[in-house]
Amino acid sequence: MMDAFASNWFTETCPLFPGQRFSLQVQEVLYSGRSDHQDILVFQSKTYGRVLVLDGVIQCTERDEFAYQEMMAHLPLTSHPLPEDVLIVGGGDGGVLREVVKHPEVKRVTLCEIDKEVTRVAKLHLPWMTTAIDHDKVTVVNAEGSTFLREKQHSYDVIITDGSDPIGPAKSLFEENYYELLKQALKPGGLICQQTESPWLFPHLLRNLGTICRQIYPEVRLAVASMPTYPCGEMGYLLCSLHTKPLNEPQRVLTEVQQQEMGLRFYTPEMHKAVFTLPSFAHKVKW
Amino acid sequence: MMDAFASNWFTETCPLFPGQRFSLQVQEVLYSGRSDHQDILVFQSKTYGRVLVLDGVIQCTERDEFAYQEMMAHLPLTSHPLPEDVLIVGGGDGGVLREVVKHPEVKRVTLCEIDKEVTRVAKLHLPWMTTAIDHDKVTVVNAEGSTFLREKQHSYDVIITDGSDPIGPAKSLFEENYYELLKQALKPGGLICQQTESPWLFPHLLRNLGTICRQIYPEVRLAVASMPTYPCGEMGYLLCSLHTKPLNEPQRVLTEVQQQEMGLRFYTPEMHKAVFTLPSFAHKVKW
Repeated sequence: MMDAFASNWFTETCPLFPGQRFSLQVQEVLYSGRSDHQDILVFQSKTYGRVLVLDGVIQCTERDEFAYQEMMAHLPLTSHPLPEDVLIVGGGDGGVLREVVKHPEVKRVTLCEIDKEVTRVAKLHLPWMTTAIDHDKVTVVNAEGSTFLREKQHSYDVIITDGSDPIGPAKSLFEENYYELLKQALKPGGLICQQTESPWLFPHLLRNLGTICRQIYPEVRLAVASMPTYPCGEMGYLLCSLHTKPLNEPQRVLTEVQQQEMGLRFYTPEMHKAVFTLPSFAHKVKW
Repeated sequence: MMDAFASNWFTETCPLFPGQRFSLQVQEVLYSGRSDHQDILVFQSKTYGRVLVLDGVIQCTERDEFAYQEMMAHLPLTSHPLPEDVLIVGGGDGGVLREVVKHPEVKRVTLCEIDKEVTRVAKLHLPWMTTAIDHDKVTVVNAEGSTFLREKQHSYDVIITDGSDPIGPAKSLFEENYYELLKQALKPGGLICQQTESPWLFPHLLRNLGTICRQIYPEVRLAVASMPTYPCGEMGYLLCSLHTKPLNEPQRVLTEVQQQEMGLRFYTPEMHKAVFTLPSFAHKVKW
C-alpha cells in the first residue's frame, strides 16, 4: 500500500478501471490497518478533508460524500409511499444510515455490515459519518449480506445495498441469486437500491444487471449522478421495485422546509427526476 | 513536462484544482511541442484512445470527447429557433465545429482560434476531430477572440466559446468585458454558450459569471453534465440568451431520426432538459 503514497499523494489503484488513476494529496495518515476482510485506510487530504479507503479504493471523502449518501438514501426512500422498515447491506461507514434516519416515516433500520472494523474506524476518524449508528431506530448486525438475507421474508420496505466494488468482499452482491434474495426479503410494494458504478466504465455490468433485474422486478430504472472522487466522476444507482409506479419521480415530494431540516446539499425532488435521464450511449447498452 | 510521464503515466497538473490529480496510462507519445501560445501534447493512451493536452491540462480524449462537444454545440444550437450564423471562439481542435455543421439550419460557421498549431496538430493526430475544418460552411480565422469580436456587430445567432481554463491564453474569455463584446456581436434573439468547469471546483467563478451575465442578458442558465476526463468528472455549460424563452428546454426538438443521422452519442432532447437541474449546493452559490 505504501507505493500509493509516493511524494505524499495517495493514488487509487483498482483492476476494475485500468489505464486511469485518481490521486489526492495527503496531509496525514490517520489510520492504516487490515481487518479480517480488507485493508482500511483513513487519511487527511489537502483539499478533500478526511478520506476513507478500502482495499485501495476511495469510499468517501469529507468534501463530496454527501452526494453519494443522499442519492443512495433519498432516491429509494422517497420512491416508497411509507418506508417504515429499512435494511442497509454494507454501508459500515454509517453515511447512508445517517441519511435514512432523517425520514420520520422510518421506524426501524438494520445495518448489515460484514466488517465491523469499518464502523469502528469510521467512529474514530470520520465521526460526522457515524452520527446515526447509535440511534434508537438502528440495529447493527455484523454478517455477510446474502447469509443474513436468506432468513428474511417480506421484512423490509426498502433495502439499500451500499457495497464496495464488484470484486472483493462485495462480489456476491452483484450476482443473480442476490437479487432473488432481496425480492424475498421485501414487503409487498417494496424496493431496492444499489450502486452500479458509472455507465462510462462498466456497460457490460449494467447490461447484465438490467437483464437479471427485469426478470425479477416489475420496475427497474438506472439513475446516474455526479460524484467527483469516484471513477469517471459519477455513480450509477439501480432502483428496482415491486410496486409499478414510476421510479423516476418521487412518490413523496420533500418540501423546501423538509429539505432544509434534513440538511440536504445534493438531493432535491427536481434532481430525482433529472438523474434518471441518461445519455444516448447508456441507452444503447439497454438503459 | 517530462515529469508528468513517470512510469508511463501522464498526470495532469493545474494550479486551478490543487490537491487532486487525474492520470492516464500512456502507450506512445505522438506529438510534443510548444506553439507561440502553449505546450501541445498528443499521446496514445492505454484505455482512452488518443489524448490532446494543452499546457498540461487534458482537452479531449477519443473515448469521451463526444460528451463535451455535443453539449457545447447542441445545447445552444437547439435553443435557437434558426441558427444560421455561428461563431466558435477557441475550439481549434475542431470537435465543436464537427457537431455544429451537422445542423442543416447552419449556413456559415466561423472558427476563431488564437493558436493555429492546435488545429495543425489535431488534423495530423486527431483526424476524427477535424472532419469539418474544410467544410464549405466554415471559415477559420487565427486571431484572439476579444480582438476579433470588437469588430463584429449583430453578426451571429449563436456564439460558442470553447476556450481552455480561465488561466493561460483563454483568461480574457472569462472577464466582464468579454460578455459585453459577445452581446454586441449577437443578432437579436441570439445566444452564447461557454464552458465553466464543475460547480464542485469553482463556486466563486460561477457566482461571478452569474452576476456578470445576469446584468447583460435577459436569460442566463447553467447546465452540468458528465465528462469523465475533466476535473471532478463533469463540465458546466453557461447559456445566456437575448431571447426570453426558457433555455432549459430545446426550441428545436431533434427527432430520433435526426439524432441518428447526426450520430449523437450523448445529447438527447431529454438530456437537454435534465442537465439544467442542479444539486442544492450549486443553487446555494446563486444557481
